[in-house]
Amino acid sequence: MQSKTPSQSRTTMTDMVLPSETNSLNKLFGGELLARMDRAASIAASRHSKSITVTASVNHVAFNMPVPLGSVVTVEAKVSRAFTTSMEVYIDVWMEDVNGGKFKANEAIYTFVAVDDSGKPTKVPALSPETELEKERFAAALRRKQLSLVLAGKMKPNDATELRALFMG
Amino acid sequence: MQSKTPSQSRTTMTDMVLPSETNSLNKLFGGELLARMDRAASIAASRHSKSITVTASVNHVAFNMPVPLGSVVTVEAKVSRAFTTSMEVYIDVWMEDVNGGKFKANEAIYTFVAVDDSGKPTKVPALSPETELEKERFAAALRRKQLSLVLAGKMKPNDATELRALFMG
Amino acid sequence: MQSKTPSQSRTTMTDMVLPSETNSLNKLFGGELLARMDRAASIAASRHSKSITVTASVNHVAFNMPVPLGSVVTVEAKVSRAFTTSMEVYIDVWMEDVNGGKFKANEAIYTFVAVDDSGKPTKVPALSPETELEKERFAAALRRKQLSLVLAGKMKPNDATELRALFMG
Amino acid sequence: MQSKTPSQSRTTMTDMVLPSETNSLNKLFGGELLARMDRAASIAASRHSKSITVTASVNHVAFNMPVPLGSVVTVEAKVSRAFTTSMEVYIDVWMEDVNGGKFKANEAIYTFVAVDDSGKPTKVPALSPETELEKERFAAALRRKQLSLVLAGKMKPNDATELRALFMG
Amino acid sequence: MQSKTPSQSRTTMTDMVLPSETNSLNKLFGGELLARMDRAASIAASRHSKSITVTASVNHVAFNMPVPLGSVVTVEAKVSRAFTTSMEVYIDVWMEDVNGGKFKANEAIYTFVAVDDSGKPTKVPALSPETELEKERFAAALRRKQLSLVLAGKMKPNDATELRALFMG
Amino acid sequence: MQSKTPSQSRTTMTDMVLPSETNSLNKLFGGELLARMDRAASIAASRHSKSITVTASVNHVAFNMPVPLGSVVTVEAKVSRAFTTSMEVYIDVWMEDVNGGKFKANEAIYTFVAVDDSGKPTKVPALSPETELEKERFAAALRRKQLSLVLAGKMKPNDATELRALFMG
Repeated sequence: MQSKTPSQSRTTMTDMVLPSETNSLNKLFGGELLARMDRAASIAASRHSKSITVTASVNHVAFNMPVPLGSVVTVEAKVSRAFTTSMEVYIDVWMEDVNGGKFKANEAIYTFVAVDDSGKPTKVPALSPETELEKERFAAALRRKQLSLVLAGKMKPNDATELRALFMG
Repeated sequence: MQSKTPSQSRTTMTDMVLPSETNSLNKLFGGELLARMDRAASIAASRHSKSITVTASVNHVAFNMPVPLGSVVTVEAKVSRAFTTSMEVYIDVWMEDVNGGKFKANEAIYTFVAVDDSGKPTKVPALSPETELEKERFAAALRRKQLSLVLAGKMKPNDATELRALFMG
Repeated sequence: MQSKTPSQSRTTMTDMVLPSETNSLNKLFGGELLARMDRAASIAASRHSKSITVTASVNHVAFNMPVPLGSVVTVEAKVSRAFTTSMEVYIDVWMEDVNGGKFKANEAIYTFVAVDDSGKPTKVPALSPETELEKERFAAALRRKQLSLVLAGKMKPNDATELRALFMG
Repeated sequence: MQSKTPSQSRTTMTDMVLPSETNSLNKLFGGELLARMDRAASIAASRHSKSITVTASVNHVAFNMPVPLGSVVTVEAKVSRAFTTSMEVYIDVWMEDVNGGKFKANEAIYTFVAVDDSGKPTKVPALSPETELEKERFAAALRRKQLSLVLAGKMKPNDATELRALFMG
Repeated sequence: MQSKTPSQSRTTMTDMVLPSETNSLNKLFGGELLARMDRAASIAASRHSKSITVTASVNHVAFNMPVPLGSVVTVEAKVSRAFTTSMEVYIDVWMEDVNGGKFKANEAIYTFVAVDDSGKPTKVPALSPETELEKERFAAALRRKQLSLVLAGKMKPNDATELRALFMG
Repeated sequence: MQSKTPSQSRTTMTDMVLPSETNSLNKLFGGELLARMDRAASIAASRHSKSITVTASVNHVAFNMPVPLGSVVTVEAKVSRAFTTSMEVYIDVWMEDVNGGKFKANEAIYTFVAVDDSGKPTKVPALSPETELEKERFAAALRRKQLSLVLAGKMKPNDATELRALFMG
């Protein structure tokens, strides 16, 4: 399979914050944003792999900025690294108010597995990052994968060479 | 107010077709697509006018291609012409299947009015089209406006010079 | 197939405007009304044709009157003309406030195609209009069909005899 | 206040059964039908009382006929009796399949209270039944009210003269 | 089949009142609560019978306390009596406000039928009540069943021995 | 403020997997489960703090087991540690099929901040864990907090004493 670039999977989902998605402070529920990011990231992973994809995990997500009712939210998702049958997808979220102000609201990282019609994992193309930011995220993806394996008890901390460097440097 | 280009209002809304949006043939309801296009076009009009916008009218929309459950639908909206307080928004719709096939599914044209907090119409910037396609759509917008006024009985067919040319040419 | 009257397909859908359907001015989204009208009109077309129907097109729709949260909206749809496998459906929309005031809010015209289980178009009964208004709408439907064909480039303006009369009269 | 007839409050809500409203047997959830009936009946009560109304109780409702995905469901609600500040609303439900078959699917009886903007009960007009069926339902409403009071422990069985007759006759 | 206790079917559904579920007084729609209770009770009936269940009927439900937007609502459902293929489910509803106040908001009784994959009724285990309250509800269930049969015209009032006692005592 | 136990905030949300929440393999969307967990965890945090709460972050979540349409999903959330104005909430997810099989499907950890009506953070009571599992999760919460601060660049890896021990042991 030929490798692909992040921009080949870029997925942009711009939509309003509707009243049914807000809490009693008239701010977007965190859970609704998590669901939107999941749909956008899943489309990006499908565009990369040309197959059905299922959410495997969600990395640490911080909600730094409350998003008020009536805002316009743009979720942009791109594959940041491909492994054998799984893909890490990096998600950037912006919000705009009606006066045209535009702010970075969130970043999140989800992992998806490509599956066939019976739900069995299938191989995916490699990723070739192009921009500086894409290369940086590509490199960090390995550290995140090790961290995830260590936390799940599937890798010994000693073998997580990338992570050890971070904490022992 | 300084004029703006169509690309300054471009709004991209990519999302899946969910089971709750399909009919008994497992195809996307026309009405659901109309609602998605309305939201995307409304955001484009707000980006152009930096104000709240309300739907004023929908032009003829043809549904040429049934959109199956599980497809990815991309709605792209750009302001195609600005009048005093209203904006015509041109919407292009594509669908992708899971194998990566991508097809033009629809075109639609909506008109929005910019309003202030009390719902009163407010002025909007002019539009400066850049590409060939944008210039073509800009020119046709006037014909569509005349047609709309004639059909509503607010302009005499004799005064609709652009339209007369079409039928008498 | 025996012809049918418009009242045999009349479909009435009365429902509230819910908070999840309103914008930041607490008015019903145009897109939500388009979706309701699509469902009501599709039922009317199915009642006329006794088959599954799919939205083929939406004619010009004007939103003249903002519909506030808490209003009661009645959508009434009746087949206005039947062609070989397609039907034009005329939709009237009223709104009521809690004091019992009742206003005409909108008119819209949708076209549907009758299809079998595999999605293939099937024949539909002819329409026999009864009231003055039904006869008027029946006659105008032919003009609208010609206009739609001319705008889609499928009929030469010269052949659209009904329309030429309108602009040259 | 002048009395009103049942037909002055008649509310018709025709809509499809959507995939998001069905269980794993592809039949409409009882709870979804209860919610639709509540909205239709509440509109009927508001039309009678020209005020906001809130659901006070639901009488025994039997679900005799499963309603399959893709059916068209018509909910018709009419006020059947008015008390000082409350109204009994009688609801008839029909379903149609795509071949035009039409069946009575359900009957239900809800009670609503008319309230002002602060939620305080307000007086409502009396009801004058016209047809035989309306008169029959009007008479039975008193029996139902007594039964409801007895079951709630707010009336002694001995005082429920209408009910005693039923069981001792 | 071995009999089961009510606590083996206990189902707890705690969730917020969302803006899309409230009326213009910002109170939860009765119909939304009816739908939530239907889902919780259906799960309780499935836990008791280990089969698919469909709503057969809803007993008298009183809405004594308006539930404001932002409240937390807990619906608790337990099977209260099992008959051959049907189960009565008793539902208790509490609401909490943000200051931690907790109130009993409602009680309701639904009846479900256990069905196989083709929708045919199947046998269910008997119920063995344990607590005083469970025993009381178990006994009353027979009275309710007789009342339901009498009201449906399927049992003669004279044969409803439990009910006759109530009104003649 | 008096400290509280985890069981004082325990929140149980049992509900079905509906057709509108599933992908084309008829499995629950990861994003829908993230949204349900957010609502349940937010209620648990509000029960602990007796105030409005907003999502601050989501820790690593793994989706190990696909949840099919028609399953019953139980989300149980309990506060696992309280800091000055924030609370870590631990979420356990089980699924049941119609035959009564019950499986642990997921674990997740969210963090919430308690806020007043203007959105400003307010103090919350301390947490006193009781069971072995609660004590274990309480201890691990500090490690997770350090990791989160390191990853956000707000703490130097050298100062994260708990984490250093993990990787250097």
